[in-house]
Amino acid sequence: MTTLELAKDFTNLLKTNDHEGAAAKYNSDDIVSYEAMDGPMAVCRGKDTVKQKGDWWQENHEVHGALIEGPYVNGDQFVVRFTMDVTPKATGQRMSMDEVGIYTVKNGKIVEERFCYLEG
Amino acid sequence: MTTLELAKDFTNLLKTNDHEGAAAKYNSDDIVSYEAMDGPMAVCRGKDTVKQKGDWWQENHEVHGALIEGPYVNGDQFVVRFTMDVTPKATGQRMSMDEVGIYTVKNGKIVEERFCYLEG
Repeated sequence: MTTLELAKDFTNLLKTNDHEGAAAKYNSDDIVSYEAMDGPMAVCRGKDTVKQKGDWWQENHEVHGALIEGPYVNGDQFVVRFTMDVTPKATGQRMSMDEVGIYTVKNGKIVEERFCYLEG
Repeated sequence: MTTLELAKDFTNLLKTNDHEGAAAKYNSDDIVSYEAMDGPMAVCRGKDTVKQKGDWWQENHEVHGALIEGPYVNGDQFVVRFTMDVTPKATGQRMSMDEVGIYTVKNGKIVEERFCYLEG
């Protein structure tokens, strides 16, 4: 499977809102995930830890709508853009999120994901 | 200057359509530029070579409109999205381009740019 094929299938799963299935299918066992923030979630290492982060996010956010754009592909990397209408349960404040993920592929698996937030 | 400050200023220059000024100000002398294509332009090395590629692009495309979104920032990397309404002079065929650039910063300069095209 080429990076292009992987990127397309992965992004299609996200577009059907199957984030968990996409991660289960394509995340490498030793994936490293970088958030654009300080604190304990800035870097997550390993498929299980990344899954826990995803579970936490889903439990703590109400998603009203999401637009997934991509994949944008070059070589062993691809980018997906996420525009989300979401309410974090901690604040109850409905907000718009605009971010991209940069994914790096090696041997048919995603070995790194890096999330970048709009600083407009 | 932080990567965030650089990313904002660089992207603001792109938004005012000053691609040449942005590159002149922030490209490292030994920047490496990756296009998502085969052929002689797949990899360009060095600020002067990258400038030649930019000049070639501008001479060979008529841009009717452009939307620049970003920067999306995390650590030493940032992403800019380009949506362009453009006519390549070679074909005369007006088309929509949708791509992102992934930029890597080191010591206050852009040392790598990687362009990724929408494979929707």
